[in-house]
Amino acid sequence: METENIFLTPDLDKELLHFLDLNQDKELIAAIKDLHPADTAKFIERLSPKERQHFFATVKGNLDPEVLAEIHHDILESVLENLPTPDLVRAIKRLDSDDAVAVLEDLSEEQQQSILKSINPIDRKKILESLNFEPDTAGRIMQSEVAVMLDTATVSDAHSYLKKTKHLPDIFFELYLVDAEHSFKGAVRLCDLIQCKDTSLPLKYLARSRSVVIATMDQEEVGYIFKKYALVSAPVVNEEGHLLGMITADDVLHIIDEEADKAFRYLGGVMETSLEAGTLRTSYMRLRWLFVTFINTLIASSVIYQFEAVLAKYVALAILMPIVAAMGGNAGMQVVTVTVRALATHQLDLDYDGFYGVLKKIVSKEVLVGLINGTFFALFLATLAAFWFNDPRLGGILAGAMIFNVVWAGFAGSFLPLIINRLGFDPAISAGPFLTTTTDVMGFTVFLGLAKIFLVG
Amino acid sequence: METENIFLTPDLDKELLHFLDLNQDKELIAAIKDLHPADTAKFIERLSPKERQHFFATVKGNLDPEVLAEIHHDILESVLENLPTPDLVRAIKRLDSDDAVAVLEDLSEEQQQSILKSINPIDRKKILESLNFEPDTAGRIMQSEVAVMLDTATVSDAHSYLKKTKHLPDIFFELYLVDAEHSFKGAVRLCDLIQCKDTSLPLKYLARSRSVVIATMDQEEVGYIFKKYALVSAPVVNEEGHLLGMITADDVLHIIDEEADKAFRYLGGVMETSLEAGTLRTSYMRLRWLFVTFINTLIASSVIYQFEAVLAKYVALAILMPIVAAMGGNAGMQVVTVTVRALATHQLDLDYDGFYGVLKKIVSKEVLVGLINGTFFALFLATLAAFWFNDPRLGGILAGAMIFNVVWAGFAGSFLPLIINRLGFDPAISAGPFLTTTTDVMGFTVFLGLAKIFLVG
Repeated sequence: METENIFLTPDLDKELLHFLDLNQDKELIAAIKDLHPADTAKFIERLSPKERQHFFATVKGNLDPEVLAEIHHDILESVLENLPTPDLVRAIKRLDSDDAVAVLEDLSEEQQQSILKSINPIDRKKILESLNFEPDTAGRIMQSEVAVMLDTATVSDAHSYLKKTKHLPDIFFELYLVDAEHSFKGAVRLCDLIQCKDTSLPLKYLARSRSVVIATMDQEEVGYIFKKYALVSAPVVNEEGHLLGMITADDVLHIIDEEADKAFRYLGGVMETSLEAGTLRTSYMRLRWLFVTFINTLIASSVIYQFEAVLAKYVALAILMPIVAAMGGNAGMQVVTVTVRALATHQLDLDYDGFYGVLKKIVSKEVLVGLINGTFFALFLATLAAFWFNDPRLGGILAGAMIFNVVWAGFAGSFLPLIINRLGFDPAISAGPFLTTTTDVMGFTVFLGLAKIFLVG
Repeated sequence: METENIFLTPDLDKELLHFLDLNQDKELIAAIKDLHPADTAKFIERLSPKERQHFFATVKGNLDPEVLAEIHHDILESVLENLPTPDLVRAIKRLDSDDAVAVLEDLSEEQQQSILKSINPIDRKKILESLNFEPDTAGRIMQSEVAVMLDTATVSDAHSYLKKTKHLPDIFFELYLVDAEHSFKGAVRLCDLIQCKDTSLPLKYLARSRSVVIATMDQEEVGYIFKKYALVSAPVVNEEGHLLGMITADDVLHIIDEEADKAFRYLGGVMETSLEAGTLRTSYMRLRWLFVTFINTLIASSVIYQFEAVLAKYVALAILMPIVAAMGGNAGMQVVTVTVRALATHQLDLDYDGFYGVLKKIVSKEVLVGLINGTFFALFLATLAAFWFNDPRLGGILAGAMIFNVVWAGFAGSFLPLIINRLGFDPAISAGPFLTTTTDVMGFTVFLGLAKIFLVG
């Protein structure tokens, strides 16, 4: 018995790299064999593309197929391109269906076909069934291998089924019950089954009522159900309630992480998912988002342009002008952040409160918060500016613009994500450029507009 | 057998509220009884503070204690204040130790003492042991109830142990093996145990090598281990390797969500964790962060002030000036986002590459990306400005400032999170105000400085 895995450490990483560089093939293969697949994947991910090719040419058939399922999506594509088809077929055959699908997804239609041809019809059918669901749905993520029995079976039936059946999942936590039509009827936890003393007890009495996942559900919703009901595994059924497969919490850990990652990146205005992309590709992906900012700043500049005459007369305005816009932008970013998170965690729930209910709940509060905070900074700033430029009118104008813009940020920052969500987009994208355009334009217009009225008169 | 939970739906939510409003106590209690604890918690969270008080006064002892463990932290505090101590004691007694700790955490020292006095010494010891660990460490999150046997036991020993033992966890997936010193020796998955035909086989031959969690580990690291090794449960040990408890994936789902939430909020410049906080408290929490922005804008304004004379002469500068600053700010935000995520997902790993290795890896790439994208927008903007204000010099100045500031954003956006991470803070906080100060100050200084040199001469 081994009680500890051999984990990848920085030292081991160096040693493996050393083996690879010096072509010590035997040593490399032996060392990789003891490593957890996730750690082998980490080692591979850290290699340069050239080293990676060298690595796969060296280990060839000696690689645990699980490693492929663990490699980051962005890197997997290039890895698979360089792998000979027979090696791929062998790997796919040995993987659970969810991992097989995760690997196949990254191949071209052609490659998929040629690999699927080589595997047995039952597995092929399962894999194709899963591939037929949209990416990022429960059907795509699930594995079709399940432990399943008729709901008329007893505890002792279950024990002998589990001892005799060969094609059970590699890891599972529940035995699913179905009726003769294969409709899902309940789940028996292995811990309940193994503790049960009455071997003649029909399994249905052990079934705890359980949440099910519909195969067409988006992975975000799957994550929400797992979190809410603290699940470790859940059966996947089709719209008619027929059992198709199962999803386990270890997959859901990745889903939650992926969804969080997406929201985080959108808030920061980034599309890319990994550091792997080359410099040019990274530039290109960033450009698209920066372009929205660029248009935004041009709009803001053309607003300022309208007040050229006022600015020429009072340079102080040019000096103070960025304050109002920046405070509005940052206050709005805060409001967007809170609103987006509240939607994601169902603290704001359109199903329960309806669109107008949610609107009432958050927008009115945020406008009030904006009023308080806007006033706070307005008082500060007005005093400062009045003394700085020795002109109390300037203070008053700044104060008015500041209050207006921070209140506007409260309104737009909570309203925009709701609208964008309702239109079916990810509300996190509303944070950056869209909101900032409004706070910039509003900030400059109100500040310079007030100045035109009260200073120039 | 029930195959479906009664789930909370918007209609049921309304019905329950109706029962509560009309004091139909029996109907309310009956309806709550069929509900999943997570759904009852959701119903409670949606009530106003006054309704909540009414609700608890009505259901009293009829509430499933699990509900308390499911209520959002921010609301739980006020709920517990209004609950009579005997009800609390009864609830704590019936919860698994991790849930009990989660509830007790939110009580005052005094209340904790008076409740702990009333429960039996063995449970008390377990709970105190867990409370002695820092918040957000594995020791705090773990439950002390485990299925555990000596590593000399056989498969048939395990079956009879599991059938006879009373104090097993409510749900578990593995049987842990320890030696006579209670040192962790391995974990046997229930699915492997139940499939094993050889009842005389020593359990240690079924133990798969497993990752352990150290009780003092931060929850973020626990989440990383679970994700990396696709775990569904893991034993928690102390520094000496003695088994203390276990953590299951359903807890980790919450951890990952919590950590993602923290990063997301920091990126958006928000500290609060829920919508529950009142308007004044929300204002106050936002103010602190906005204050950093405020100082930032004042610094930027005082930079602009230095160029008062140039601005007075060329109003066009005031009109174009925000463009350079905003583009730098947004480009920098992108870089921070990517860097922070890469650190969180260990794509950038200080343990492997060292501080300088990481620096080299990301900073040089980001500077190059900045150079490409800065040049792209510089060409665009220079042409536009030259025609707009009929002055090619203005175009050249804008182009120079733009390239400089976007390159600076690439450098500072990747360098700042690394430094902040190294100082032991959450790098996500570097995104907003800190970075923006530098891109604003740099943007204004370089743009207006170049203008002073080349326009005024």
